[in-house]
Amino acid sequence: MRGYGMRSVGNIGWLEKERPVCGPLDAIVRPTIVAPCSSDVHVAHGGSGPKENLILGHEAVGIVEEVGPYVKRFKPGDLVAVPCVTPNWLSRGVQNFRSFSHDKGPFGSFKFVGEKDGVMAECFHVNQADPNLAHIHEGVAPEAALMTVDMMSTGFHGVELADVGIGEKVVVIGIGPIGLMAIAAAALRGASQIIGVGTRPNATRVALEYGASQVISYKDGPLDEQVFAMTRGKGAHKVIVAGGGPRELAQAVRMARPNGVVSNVNFFDVKDEISFDPLDWGLGMGDKDIRGSFCPGGGKRIQRLINMIEYKRIDPTKMISHRFHGLDAIPEAFALMDRKAPDLIKPIVYID
Amino acid sequence: MRGYGMRSVGNIGWLEKERPVCGPLDAIVRPTIVAPCSSDVHVAHGGSGPKENLILGHEAVGIVEEVGPYVKRFKPGDLVAVPCVTPNWLSRGVQNFRSFSHDKGPFGSFKFVGEKDGVMAECFHVNQADPNLAHIHEGVAPEAALMTVDMMSTGFHGVELADVGIGEKVVVIGIGPIGLMAIAAAALRGASQIIGVGTRPNATRVALEYGASQVISYKDGPLDEQVFAMTRGKGAHKVIVAGGGPRELAQAVRMARPNGVVSNVNFFDVKDEISFDPLDWGLGMGDKDIRGSFCPGGGKRIQRLINMIEYKRIDPTKMISHRFHGLDAIPEAFALMDRKAPDLIKPIVYID
Amino acid sequence: MRGYGMRSVGNIGWLEKERPVCGPLDAIVRPTIVAPCSSDVHVAHGGSGPKENLILGHEAVGIVEEVGPYVKRFKPGDLVAVPCVTPNWLSRGVQNFRSFSHDKGPFGSFKFVGEKDGVMAECFHVNQADPNLAHIHEGVAPEAALMTVDMMSTGFHGVELADVGIGEKVVVIGIGPIGLMAIAAAALRGASQIIGVGTRPNATRVALEYGASQVISYKDGPLDEQVFAMTRGKGAHKVIVAGGGPRELAQAVRMARPNGVVSNVNFFDVKDEISFDPLDWGLGMGDKDIRGSFCPGGGKRIQRLINMIEYKRIDPTKMISHRFHGLDAIPEAFALMDRKAPDLIKPIVYID
Amino acid sequence: MRGYGMRSVGNIGWLEKERPVCGPLDAIVRPTIVAPCSSDVHVAHGGSGPKENLILGHEAVGIVEEVGPYVKRFKPGDLVAVPCVTPNWLSRGVQNFRSFSHDKGPFGSFKFVGEKDGVMAECFHVNQADPNLAHIHEGVAPEAALMTVDMMSTGFHGVELADVGIGEKVVVIGIGPIGLMAIAAAALRGASQIIGVGTRPNATRVALEYGASQVISYKDGPLDEQVFAMTRGKGAHKVIVAGGGPRELAQAVRMARPNGVVSNVNFFDVKDEISFDPLDWGLGMGDKDIRGSFCPGGGKRIQRLINMIEYKRIDPTKMISHRFHGLDAIPEAFALMDRKAPDLIKPIVYID
Repeated sequence: MRGYGMRSVGNIGWLEKERPVCGPLDAIVRPTIVAPCSSDVHVAHGGSGPKENLILGHEAVGIVEEVGPYVKRFKPGDLVAVPCVTPNWLSRGVQNFRSFSHDKGPFGSFKFVGEKDGVMAECFHVNQADPNLAHIHEGVAPEAALMTVDMMSTGFHGVELADVGIGEKVVVIGIGPIGLMAIAAAALRGASQIIGVGTRPNATRVALEYGASQVISYKDGPLDEQVFAMTRGKGAHKVIVAGGGPRELAQAVRMARPNGVVSNVNFFDVKDEISFDPLDWGLGMGDKDIRGSFCPGGGKRIQRLINMIEYKRIDPTKMISHRFHGLDAIPEAFALMDRKAPDLIKPIVYID
Repeated sequence: MRGYGMRSVGNIGWLEKERPVCGPLDAIVRPTIVAPCSSDVHVAHGGSGPKENLILGHEAVGIVEEVGPYVKRFKPGDLVAVPCVTPNWLSRGVQNFRSFSHDKGPFGSFKFVGEKDGVMAECFHVNQADPNLAHIHEGVAPEAALMTVDMMSTGFHGVELADVGIGEKVVVIGIGPIGLMAIAAAALRGASQIIGVGTRPNATRVALEYGASQVISYKDGPLDEQVFAMTRGKGAHKVIVAGGGPRELAQAVRMARPNGVVSNVNFFDVKDEISFDPLDWGLGMGDKDIRGSFCPGGGKRIQRLINMIEYKRIDPTKMISHRFHGLDAIPEAFALMDRKAPDLIKPIVYID
Repeated sequence: MRGYGMRSVGNIGWLEKERPVCGPLDAIVRPTIVAPCSSDVHVAHGGSGPKENLILGHEAVGIVEEVGPYVKRFKPGDLVAVPCVTPNWLSRGVQNFRSFSHDKGPFGSFKFVGEKDGVMAECFHVNQADPNLAHIHEGVAPEAALMTVDMMSTGFHGVELADVGIGEKVVVIGIGPIGLMAIAAAALRGASQIIGVGTRPNATRVALEYGASQVISYKDGPLDEQVFAMTRGKGAHKVIVAGGGPRELAQAVRMARPNGVVSNVNFFDVKDEISFDPLDWGLGMGDKDIRGSFCPGGGKRIQRLINMIEYKRIDPTKMISHRFHGLDAIPEAFALMDRKAPDLIKPIVYID
Repeated sequence: MRGYGMRSVGNIGWLEKERPVCGPLDAIVRPTIVAPCSSDVHVAHGGSGPKENLILGHEAVGIVEEVGPYVKRFKPGDLVAVPCVTPNWLSRGVQNFRSFSHDKGPFGSFKFVGEKDGVMAECFHVNQADPNLAHIHEGVAPEAALMTVDMMSTGFHGVELADVGIGEKVVVIGIGPIGLMAIAAAALRGASQIIGVGTRPNATRVALEYGASQVISYKDGPLDEQVFAMTRGKGAHKVIVAGGGPRELAQAVRMARPNGVVSNVNFFDVKDEISFDPLDWGLGMGDKDIRGSFCPGGGKRIQRLINMIEYKRIDPTKMISHRFHGLDAIPEAFALMDRKAPDLIKPIVYID
């Protein structure tokens, strides 16, 4: 079976591997559309995760090819969205009421790329099909459903984690796909003023369509100063961090009001040192929560996001800036993501 | 001073009263737009509250005429929205984290009509101006701001109380102004399918504009049966009760899923007997919360709702079906509300 | 295999059945201590659940005899506590953040007695051992662990559901084992005044040991009047309903303050009509939540309760009023529960 | 009027000042017992707050001497506890549902020492008596009530902020009075294992009495390593930071599990740089909340804590290690606090 991935750190290309075996609770899925993601690029360059012989990709919709004998909700031929986070629901780690993402430790529920081959292949394995897959209803475009499995789920999660309330003022740092979905989610949770932070013209235009009141640039001075100027000196109720690095996180802490939340869904590198000024954090007593979380896992989450598309609450396909066709187009799409082309938001590849 | 109200139960007309006195923390406001509300009608007919010599009305925007010596945020000439619920912030009842509406017992924070003269007069008294008034920014239409002080605040509260989440399926029973705002709020909190319940053509049209997926009628069979049929037999995650009576509340309990919420913002009469079938409530163990709450109090709430208008997240003026001009037009507007004209949604009266 | 249960409604006795088969994710457990529960009695008399040929019992600790090939955390010989609620973790119903009890509809996660044979037998089947069993640490008495699987979990849940806060005044209606555990939990969540409601001397004594400030009787007048008299006329912040019927539920609604919660963990019969006076419920707007829930499911829950015993935060064995020995003693213990002997709190049977 | 405080930074002694004036909503209170606090010492040495001519002290119980004309709940002669945080309830800052501590910006509600003279004087001023004072019931020892106004309120708040749940494992860093109260609160919220961190023998003994399972020392190696060793390698569900500095905060982040919370109620200095390793924070996505908050404000809070003493849920007087008598003893008590005597926990001074 052919899959696109890393032979070793930085050595990216086609791999020939055995077709995965379907366990009794599992499914084998043939992807019909996939989308490379910046995390794939990160892994490919050794940023985290396995270091060799790994098929990349964790965003896919596809057709179920095979299911294990205990699978009840899905059967071969079903069109499904595959969450990028697929917990082991038999683990103890999911039995809490905060997150299903850490089934056996941090990010344990991130199986694709994290601990096994990803989805950019002729077919791929899904653990525990019943709880982890989601049907794509008729009337929902598969490419729209594809946007739910990571981008929409993670971006929305950033806003839910921040507990954005009616009429609140929200800053979203970063207008890549996650940031754009956070902007859309802030609007969908009832924010009033939504300030996006970014520079790319394409993404800026989409940010405004998704509900940003304004988009400001890192280049025009410290973000916190800009935000204070735009909020009558008061700062933001909630700040979603979907881009940037330690400096932007520190600015986020500064610009948050007392009783505010900084909600991070951005991946930090092991080499980043996270630090901030105690005064910005109210000397430890300013009631500014700092939260950081991972894309929620499981099929119900994705089903609910697909419902939002079905009922026309959001059109996530506005983010799709590039469309490719055929398995053989994956390298080109991946290269685009790798070099962060200036007009890029999200590329997708129709496999067939 | 002239005010429109009830001389005694059922005897409605103009009253001549002393101009109210401004306490040290208070304000006197001259209304520029008022809106009669069905609660005024309810009180006028003896349904609850004081029984004689009472100016009615609790929805107003206006100009501050006078403030007490300790008022800092407001001064004569300011254009303000006046929340229908104005807590005594020095009471102990506001020091909890659930609601500011019950300052000295149930509804204690409901001062207008509830315990003193209302707003349909040449001027009216506002207790504790600083915490209770809200400025209307330039660029926000006063008639839009008027919609926040009760209709939008209460309707939104129903949805917040139900804790409507991303992608959930929501039923809103009643499409009067509160129900319409609940529909808008359900969409603004990220619901997928939103089923409104009502019959009036005008209101149905506005319900669809505010985000209802469908509007069903009481006349087409039990609501719960209709809702089960529209949700693949599963029922609603959340049900907002903004109309109907005990029968509809019982149906709401039935149509809610386990882990669901029935959120009531509808006024029940003392003669109503609330009852439901234990099976519908999961024999007491079905994880179906039944909540009932009152419009939240205070100026910050209203300010945040006004922010939503400023940032164009909602246009509540779609609800305004009738506009009248001049203090003398109040009786006509009130009569319209009293007889529930079929094309009525919300009437407003421009005083000057 | 021998098991004690119902041949048909009301016809209770020993059944001879096939030894259960262990599925690939499951375990077979040999009980070492079991406790009959009033729900078993309820089922035996046809109150709910299957109607014939059913082994009863859903409270057990025991020794793992056999595990399926995919089970990792447990092996034959392990001493385990068996939650009375054992969800199917592969169902969609567990993927929400409120309760794991309704895996495929109301109470779906209640497998023992609810949909298959219970634990009062030579051995019994446990679905999904890994997520559903809990080890009993050395140093924790098995009979104490036995109390966690239903009594302690349900009683504590009533208090958690009510969101009892520091310094709040709490009423617990009913001082059977669930009510006693609710009293203990109210103390363990920081309540100040805790008023128990009941009459049995034995249970009253234990209620006071677990932290009740007072125990009042149904016989001394309406509960709400007694509670108002004991709380300076203000009522309770939170009311836990762990006994009584519709009348007591209505009294609970009345005695709760605005912003209060009535939390029901009591089983209502299909014939009970639940009703209350709208005035007691603040005319629908008094911010009195009415919640009703089921014992939470899964092994992590039980593990945390066992941790509480290990760290000496609670001694649930004070509830054990009768101890029997040998499988053959089950009928006697069951009969005691059936006739609600006056000095009964909780009987247990040591199988070996 | 005589008061003990700072003439200028580091210059501590008796000040002669005008008796404060009672505003219309306010009270003048004559302290009967006061307790110096480490924050007073911090301010005296210029760590934060006003820099000259300031009476210190923010923990007092006393007798109401005078009230303003609008005060209803209190009258001269009443014995009251005075919260260390007394919000301006007419400000907008209190109208949210997270904290009343930041009425006009960070710590705005901290009036004593923060913006006006403190309580270590012949009498002192209390803003807004009705919402801010709390009666001391008969049967509650005034010295016990004194412990509620800061120590108990802040320590308990740390635990509430961490959302400590039934059976969770909790670490409390620091066993000064705040840490001791956090240990007591962790037990009162249902924690199982509670690990205190500190070294002083006196405080260690009291920590164990309040419910610590163990007390570990900073001197025996990195705290996180000790905690992992004591929790089967898993870490703590919740970490309360009530002592230490940036290093301990970073260790707290490391020792928290995914879905855990680090809850800080410790004052950081402007010179401290807060920083931690991204890996310890799950690379930004590990679901470890970092919260930091201030003592909650208002009289209802304190009333509820006093209720806990009344109903014998806690005896905070175990913390009182030194008792002095007479206004003239304040310097000695203050000096004890300043030099952190090894056997010191909390000193109090009976004024009369």
